[in-house]
Formats: sequence, C-alpha cells, structure tokens
Amino acid sequence: MHRLPAGAAAAAALLKGGRPNKRIRVYDCRHQDLPSKVLETRGLDFHGFLQIVRTCFDIDLHESFVLATTDKTLLDYGLFDELQDECTLYLWQHKDQTLPTATEKNIMFTPHYDTLIKSGTHEYYAENQKALPYALAELVDNSLSATAKNKGLRTIEIRLVFDKALGKHGVLVLDNGCGMTSNQLNNWAVYRLSKFTRQSSTFSSEKEGYVRPDDVPRSLNSDISYFGVGGKQAAFFIGDSVRMISKPWNSPYVHELALSKEDFQRKEENNEDVYTGRIVSRMPCDPSQITDDERFLHDVVGEESGKQSFTVVVITGILPEHVNYLKQDFEEWTRELAHIYHYYIHGSNGNVLSQPHCPRRNPTQKIDILVTLREKSPKSPISLNLRDVNNDMQTLYINAAADTFEFMANTGDDGKVEGVLRYHPFLYDRETYPKDPCASQASDNDDSDDYVSDAGARGKKDIFECFWNGRLIPYTTVSEFDWCSRPKKVSDLPAECFSRLSGVLFTNDKFSVSTNKLKFMELELKLKNKETIFTPILKDQQKFSKRGNIEKEFMQWIQNCHERYDKQVKFVGFKGTTTRTDV
Amino acid sequence: MHRLPAGAAAAAALLKGGRPNKRIRVYDCRHQDLPSKVLETRGLDFHGFLQIVRTCFDIDLHESFVLATTDKTLLDYGLFDELQDECTLYLWQHKDQTLPTATEKNIMFTPHYDTLIKSGTHEYYAENQKALPYALAELVDNSLSATAKNKGLRTIEIRLVFDKALGKHGVLVLDNGCGMTSNQLNNWAVYRLSKFTRQSSTFSSEKEGYVRPDDVPRSLNSDISYFGVGGKQAAFFIGDSVRMISKPWNSPYVHELALSKEDFQRKEENNEDVYTGRIVSRMPCDPSQITDDERFLHDVVGEESGKQSFTVVVITGILPEHVNYLKQDFEEWTRELAHIYHYYIHGSNGNVLSQPHCPRRNPTQKIDILVTLREKSPKSPISLNLRDVNNDMQTLYINAAADTFEFMANTGDDGKVEGVLRYHPFLYDRETYPKDPCASQASDNDDSDDYVSDAGARGKKDIFECFWNGRLIPYTTVSEFDWCSRPKKVSDLPAECFSRLSGVLFTNDKFSVSTNKLKFMELELKLKNKETIFTPILKDQQKFSKRGNIEKEFMQWIQNCHERYDKQVKFVGFKGTTTRTDV
Ligand SMILES: Nc1ncnc2c1ncn2[C@@H]1O[C@H](COP(=O)(O)OP(=O)(O)OP(=O)(O)O)[C@@H](O)[C@H]1O
Ligand SMILES: Nc1ncnc2c1ncn2[C@@H]1O[C@H](COP(=O)(O)OP(=O)(O)OP(=O)(O)O)[C@@H](O)[C@H]1O
Ligand SMILES: [Mg+2]
Ligand SMILES: [Mg+2]
Repeated sequence: MHRLPAGAAAAAALLKGGRPNKRIRVYDCRHQDLPSKVLETRGLDFHGFLQIVRTCFDIDLHESFVLATTDKTLLDYGLFDELQDECTLYLWQHKDQTLPTATEKNIMFTPHYDTLIKSGTHEYYAENQKALPYALAELVDNSLSATAKNKGLRTIEIRLVFDKALGKHGVLVLDNGCGMTSNQLNNWAVYRLSKFTRQSSTFSSEKEGYVRPDDVPRSLNSDISYFGVGGKQAAFFIGDSVRMISKPWNSPYVHELALSKEDFQRKEENNEDVYTGRIVSRMPCDPSQITDDERFLHDVVGEESGKQSFTVVVITGILPEHVNYLKQDFEEWTRELAHIYHYYIHGSNGNVLSQPHCPRRNPTQKIDILVTLREKSPKSPISLNLRDVNNDMQTLYINAAADTFEFMANTGDDGKVEGVLRYHPFLYDRETYPKDPCASQASDNDDSDDYVSDAGARGKKDIFECFWNGRLIPYTTVSEFDWCSRPKKVSDLPAECFSRLSGVLFTNDKFSVSTNKLKFMELELKLKNKETIFTPILKDQQKFSKRGNIEKEFMQWIQNCHERYDKQVKFVGFKGTTTRTDV
Repeated sequence: MHRLPAGAAAAAALLKGGRPNKRIRVYDCRHQDLPSKVLETRGLDFHGFLQIVRTCFDIDLHESFVLATTDKTLLDYGLFDELQDECTLYLWQHKDQTLPTATEKNIMFTPHYDTLIKSGTHEYYAENQKALPYALAELVDNSLSATAKNKGLRTIEIRLVFDKALGKHGVLVLDNGCGMTSNQLNNWAVYRLSKFTRQSSTFSSEKEGYVRPDDVPRSLNSDISYFGVGGKQAAFFIGDSVRMISKPWNSPYVHELALSKEDFQRKEENNEDVYTGRIVSRMPCDPSQITDDERFLHDVVGEESGKQSFTVVVITGILPEHVNYLKQDFEEWTRELAHIYHYYIHGSNGNVLSQPHCPRRNPTQKIDILVTLREKSPKSPISLNLRDVNNDMQTLYINAAADTFEFMANTGDDGKVEGVLRYHPFLYDRETYPKDPCASQASDNDDSDDYVSDAGARGKKDIFECFWNGRLIPYTTVSEFDWCSRPKKVSDLPAECFSRLSGVLFTNDKFSVSTNKLKFMELELKLKNKETIFTPILKDQQKFSKRGNIEKEFMQWIQNCHERYDKQVKFVGFKGTTTRTDV
C-alpha cells in the first residue's frame, strides 16, 4: 500500500495558502475486495469532489452513492471542509450497507515532542528540591564518558551565568572531551538511541561498535552513558532550550545544534515534522551564530581557540525556581555532586583528609569538576573545585572511620561488587557516626532521636551507599547483609556496635539502574541470591582468600573494633513504666 | 532549504537492488556564500560522480577540486561507496582551505523505537518482583477512564490465557467502556500524546477539549489518564507485542491496531519509517484477522456480538518470569490490585466487612474488576472478583479500626485532600495494628521486632497511604503531620498511642504524580506548606468547621480512643544493662 508522507504535504499546502490540498483515501465498499484510491481535494468543494469520485470509481450517472468516514458519519458540505489531510473515507451505495470485508488504513504514530521536553519533569523529582543536582549529574556523566580517553587533565565545568548584562540566564556544562562529529551530534538528539543501538555515521564502515571497558578498581571506568535519554531529559528539566556546541577530535569544524520547546511548538502548529533540525558547522572562534540573548557565549566561543576537541551544553530558559535554588543552595547541591562523583574526584581511596598529598589518591587520571557562578555585579563570581568539598557524606564517613573491612562479591552473571565497611566508634560521651548536615532540614520528622535511640548511632539508616560504575546511585541504599547483621543469639558484643557501621558498595554495570540513574533495579535481590558469593579481602595478605568465611572474618573484625576503639561504656537508660487512666 | 524525506528514499533504493541511489548535498566552499546542490549518485561510481560535480558547479576542466565530508575526511573511491544516503559533502579548491562561512545541514532525530518498547522496563521495577501489578494497573486505569460515563455496570476483566492449546500466552484486559474511534486508536499509539495535548480527529472541529470532572468524594472521578504513556509502557513491560481491539460507541465497526517489537526491528533494518502502522476496520464478530498464535481471540471476538462498545488490550510474547509470577503469586498481585483500587471497588467508605450489604458502599456506580486465569487442562480456570479480596491492607486497616478521625486540607492552588485517621487499640495482650501478610517475605531484615519494638505498634511505618484521584500511589507514604505527631512536652497520653494510627489521604489531581504513577512528586512539600490549611471534620455535626483547631480536636480524639478502646496496660520491659570487656 502506498504511504502518504505525513506533515510534508500539509506543510506544502499551507504554504500555498487558501483551501489546503488534502489527500483522501477512498475505499469502494460496493465491491467485495474494497478497491481504494487516493484522491486530492485541490481547489475542490464538496460538489466538485463528488464529481471526481464519480469519475474515478466509474459510477454511472443514474447510480446514487454516499461518502462516509470510517466511523460511518455521512459527509456533507460542512464536514467536507473539515476533513483532515490523509484521512480515509468509505464509498457506499447507501448508508446502511455493511462492510463487505475488513479495510485497512495506514497511520503514523511518531511520538509527541513531549517525549523530549517532558521526559525529565516527572522523573527527577522525588518529594524534595534535590532534583536539580541529579539533572546536572546527567550532564557530568556525559562529560566523564567523553573525557575517558583524554591523554591529559580531564576538565568538566558547570558554569552558571545569571547576569542579565550577559543575556538570558544560562546553565552551561563544558568539557575537554572527545567532542562529537556532526553525525554523533545528530545521534545525540535521538531520544533512546544508546551506544548499544547506534549505527549510522557518514560512512557505513565507521559503525561505532561498543566495546566494554576493562575492569578497574571500584569500577571507575567512566562508562556511564546507557539509555540515550540523559542529556535531553536533563536539559529540558533545567530549562526550555538547549544548544550543543562540539568540536570532535581531528576535525577542523565546530558543530552546533539547538533544540527548543518553542521550536517544537511552532513546528507542530504549522503541521511540520517536529523532529527536524539543523546542524551548523563553522570554524572555531566564529561568533556569527551568537544571538543577543546568549551574549555570554562570546566568552565560550572565544575560549575555543587552541582546543583540540570539546563539548559545551548551553541551557537557557531556566525555570526561575531552579535559578533560585542554584544560587541560594549553592553549598547543598555542590556538596551533593561532590558526593555523587566522590571516587572519580578523589580516586579509589576517597577523600582521606589526613593524607592530602598521598600520591595514591588519584591512581589513574586527574579529573577536575569545577562549578562557577556568575551573578550580576557587584556580586563577584564564585568558583569551586568539587575536590575541595570536605563535607560530603563519603568524606565524612571516610574520615570518621576507625577501621575498615573490605570485601568482594561476584554474581553468577559477571556482576562484580567491591565493598567497604567502616567502623565509627563510641568515644567518651558520644557516638562518632557522622550526621548528615543537611538531613535535619530535609526530613524534620525523622529526627525524633529519643524515639529511636535504641536503634543506635546509625538510627534507621541503611548501612550501604551504592555506586554504579563509580558513580553514586542516590536513591538505593542496602540495609545490611546476613553476615554483617546483629546475630540473633546472644553474644559478648553489645548490640550497639552493629549500628556503628557505614559502608559503600561499588558495582559494575552488570547491575542495572533506572533510566534516571536514581535507583538500582534489583541490587538487593541479586546480592541476596544464593549464587552471589561474598569473600573478605584480608588486610594482612592484601588479597582475598576464596575460602575466607566472610561472617567469621567480619565478626572478628567488629569485635576487634569494639575492643580497640570504643572508649567508654554506654549505659542504656532506665525507661520507667508508663501508666494510664484505667478504663 | 529542501528537506529530503528520510527512510523512504533509502527504502526505495533498496527495493531496486544493486548500488543504491544516494542523495548528497554538496556545499561549494570556494564561494563565500556557500551555494549548495543536492546530487544523486544513481548508477555512478566515484569517477562518474566527480564528473557530475564538475558539471553542476561549473568547474573548469583545468581547475582542480576535492570533495570532503563535514569532518574534512577526503573522499576517495572506497569511501564514496560507503557514503550514507542524505549525507553532506564539501567541495574545496584544495584540502587545506578553511570554511568561508558557517554551513547548515538538515537532520532528522525521530526518537528511537525503544522509546515505546523499553519505556517501562526500567521504570516499574523497584527492588522487588512487585512491578507487574503496577503495569497491569496502568491498563486498569485506562479501563476505569473509559468506563467512567457508562450508564450501567462497569466491567473490567484481566484475562490470563496460559494454555498452549489456545495459542501463545496472552494477557488481556477487556472493558465495556466507550471504545476508540480509529483516530483515537491512532492517538493511543502516539507516545506522550495526552488528553491535554490531543487535537486531531477526522474533522478538525471535533477537537476533544478536555473537561475536568467535578469534585466527588475521595476524588473517585476515574480520571486517571495523564501522560500518554501508560498503555504502551505497560504492554511492552509485560510482553513484546500488543493488539488493541476497540469498538467505539455509535460506530458499526471494530478497529484493530497491532504493534510489536519484531515489527519495529524489521522496519528499522529495512530503513523504513518505524512509526507507521495499519488500523484494520471490520464488522463485529469477524474472525478473519485472528492468527493461529492468537487462537484464544476466537472467544474474544465471539463475545463482541451485542456489545455497544468495548476495548480489548491483547498482550503476547509475555516474558516467562512474568508468566510464572502471575501464576504462582496470583494471590499476592490480585491483593495488590484490590488495594490499589480499593475505593473504586468498594465505594468511598471502603470494605467494611461488618456491613456487607450496606447500600452506601457503592454510592455512584458498580465497578467489577475481574481476574481470570486459564491454564492448560486439567487445571481448572480461576476467576476472582477483586471485590471479594478481604486481606488487602485497606480492608485490614478499616476493619481493625476502633474509631476514625476525618479531616480535609486545601492548598492554595485548588489542591484538595481528604484524610482519615484510624485508631488500632491495644487489646489485652497485643497490639491490633494490622500486619502486612506479605511484608515479612519481602523485606526480611526489617522485622527485627525486638530492635524497634519501642517504636510501637506501627514500627517504622509511615501513617498515611496516599490515593490520587481515588487510586493508590503505592510508593508514596506520608509519615505524619505536625498536628498528629507525639507532642514533645510530656502528656498524660502514653507515647505508644501515637503508633496505633493508620491513615489514608485522598488527593485530587492538583497534586502531581510520576509518569509511572508510583510516586507523588511533592505531596509532603505541598502539605507542609503554610498555605495548606487542615480542618477537622467533626462527626457529631457531620460537617467541617472552618474554625476547628485540628490539633486540639485530634488530641481529644486520640485521648478518647485510648481511654475507651485500649484494654490493658502494657508494661515496657526492663532492659537490663549491657557490659563489655574493658579496653
Ligand atoms: N559532553 C559530551 N561529549 C561527547 N559526546 C556526548 C556528550 N554528551 C552527550 N554525548 C553523546 O550523546 C549521546 C547521548 O547522550 P545522552 O546523555 O542523551 O544519552 P546517553 O548518555 O547515551 O545515555 P543516558 O540516558 O544513560 O544518559 C551520548 O551517548 C554521547 O555519545
Ligand atoms: N481501554 C481503553 N478504552 C478507551 N480508550 C483507551 C483505553 N486505553 C487507552 N485509551 C486511550 O488511549 C490513550 C492513551 O492511553 P495511555 O494509557 O497510553 O496513556 P494515557 O492514559 O493517556 O496517559 P497515562 O500515561 O497517564 O496512562 C488514553 O488517553 C485513552 O484516550
Ligand atoms: Mg548521558
Ligand atoms: Mg493510561
């Protein structure tokens, strides 16, 4: 069957003005085999169209016939003008005839453009204002992937320009990564096209077969692009238009692609194909594409000179509440980002404050993640390297730990987990388990301390924070494992010790996460599966022994921690008895 | 600029076989204004193409020139054959020339078909196997919306056919709702097209302006279609193909539309437009469309006779683990569905077991939600009306309550909440707060009872389950409000009383939920906002007094509950002291 190219025809008709031409498929229901023809309405009114129908379907002058929609509404003068382009009509002898056989109608069902512009709106949000750091994280994820093969320093900058003197408000993410060819930039815009499904390039032989990176400690492999949605979702969550500026390695040109809500709406109103766009290629430092609204781009374009490759994501039309949050809660969200990328920034041992110049801190490659904020003068610009954040939760846990216990786990299907448990002792008159400095504001009815004090230092909190390919997945925590939970049978060790544990799990990407990277899909399920084997990594030997019984090793370790580090007996308060008026 | 219709051209070329025709846009970079032309490669090798370029761009025979890609790779014999249809080339005088001005290239970025088929995969899942009931719920949501205006009984059936004798495994959802016209069926397939953005119909005047339903008790308005994604997401989460069969009210025809992963893949491989499909229209009871794989449809099509309107969603290619879960955990997931739709099934007072024939139970309209399971003989078919489920959490809470306290809240922006608190007294030797019969299996390390016993009957659980337009949003609970939390200052009332509360919140859709309807976006935030005013609904007056102080009324009520219903003093056990080996 012949397919009518949607959109295009309607657009062409509109351009001509006046009564638009419509292509209408007419099925002849007077015949068993339902012959059909596509007729055009160009310049015709209903009467004229009926003449055409009569001619095309060889209907004798003495024969009568009716035209009806697929839902059997009879057509008349008024309705004829309201017919949509590419609709289907049935030609009947009289209006009560039944369909002699099934008819077919071709349709198009291209996803609505809300697919792109609304995909993030409902997903990053989760009961609090913390959504924005996770949206920014999607862009940092992309920059980490793009800089993975850098020879030298990897630089990622989140640049906030909230100064009317420089144009609209802008949120920019810049990196010195590999950049994108114009085909890759095209692919960037395709929702749900991932590195696993991607194929096209200018040359068919250049198919980008995806190669899994090798195993590295803590799975810090920078391979955190997965679903083909992150960049778009994040950009349209933060603002209403996004411009990508990218220069690929080995190309003399810079490519630009801009998408905006306004463009999508306009194209839809004009019945144009919404998923069309334009990639501009230009020489580096050519400012000709910069609009007055985006004057701040003069700096950005100026910086292009001498860069081998780079990518800049420019988001504008920022929601006012986002601008407020980014300005007012600067410390909170940068702290959260420092938490998410803790091990990328500080290396696999994390931010050990007592050894600030330890060479092991960044075993592979240096990654700078900078945040800069420029508000209107006289406010002076702020600049922060996330490496200098010293109060993210991982930093607190690492530095409050008296001792650590490391382990590994392997699932049946190549899933790999590294784990660290940390002991936070009781010292003199208080627990040293770190408190989240922001938590009390966020969930104010959770800190009814007296209520849960028996649950100990950790309170209701789960033990483990979880990292996936080295990046924090913020909404999944793992409470504990069988082998590290308080034993049911009475033991010498006070129960409180088990609540002095914090922990981290590092998984590779054989564990899957949700599209917004906020949650693991089935981490606990997989870890609790019988095929998953935990092995302790014993310090003395600096290797893990296949035969080491993890529960035994752990119990020894925690017993040891308690004896060596807890500095005072804590008395469990006498509760008294409660009485009430009798019934 | 002229746009090349994607896909179509390539497909046409492929059909012809041999060297495919490619349309290539060539920019002439020798001139400042970059004139460009689209050339076709039909039948040409590189040499032939160069001749054409020379002619089209008026290049003298003694002039030399080069052709390069947009990334400045020079073209040669080999690369020429690998060029993709619709690519762009630059024509240079020599290879080191720079771009005189920015060039533009038109692109298409239609979302990948994974948008449809993978959208659910990562979203319904959440650390457990409970994902499936929520996917089925999306289909029930649609059926509830579709039957909202039914005159008589509203019937929704989830029919599971797991009997090889009847074809492939099938999950069907049938309803006697309003059905869909062929245009509505077309719209159903458009991802992210919602009732708020929908426009087209055969006639432009028939635009379906969305009308917000009136306020009804508990917001049981059946208006639970919101994002334009649910049906597709659910279908492709459950299986790999879906067929919609629908007869709209007032039409003599039944319309069918089938989508499948296989079709999408095939179309992509053939470079065809993936978002094309075919709606078949036929007379009711016409079995001509049924394939052997879907023999179970003979029954379904047979049942069409006499039905004014209906919709059937037929999902096949069911993942084996889903089949197992649906069979083995039949009780669990039907119980969860009964929980989700509790107030639709039982009416606004819920399932009060002591008054089984109370006429107030279904004040508006009867809604039957049936689940039937047909396995291969000799297993006999199972059929369950969700109304007969008596152990879903809401049923347990309602029937274990000694008394209730009702209230209302209004937010500044028309958000409406109704709320109920229930008191579950201490009786003789135990708390009567209902335990979730399935919970102990699901999260086995949460029931360390002794640990949290001081938190009381409710344990760590939040007080409120939350319903949105009458339908449970399973992953959002609200812990408590200021006015119903245990006062900080000492009072006569024992602290345990505050943990004998369960509750329900019913919101209207001024509160927003996540696209998968698993979570509210900012319920607590909105409820804790100062503009949100809570008012008690006092029983005696059967009305709510604007001036009633909710905290005072609540405290009176709970005091009263304690005095009237708690039947014995509970002694808080003496804990003893814990000692440890000295350091
Ligand atoms: N900063 C960048 N530098 C180079 N390429 C980039 C950059 N950002 C995005 N890309 C390319 O665009 C593609 C699409 O990015 P997007 O974030 O939308 O999805 P994704 O990263 O593939 O998957 P995910 O949904 O997991 O984020 C990436 O796969 C990558 O090839
Ligand atoms: N059983 C049904 N009967 C009649 N119309 C239906 C039925 N199921 C779906 N539809 C129509 O198809 C549309 C798309 O359904 P879908 O579930 O995919 O999205 P939605 O219900 O609009 O939004 P949501 O994402 O909230 O589910 C619905 O809005 C409705 O008009
Ligand atoms: Mg990404
Ligand atoms: Mg729906």
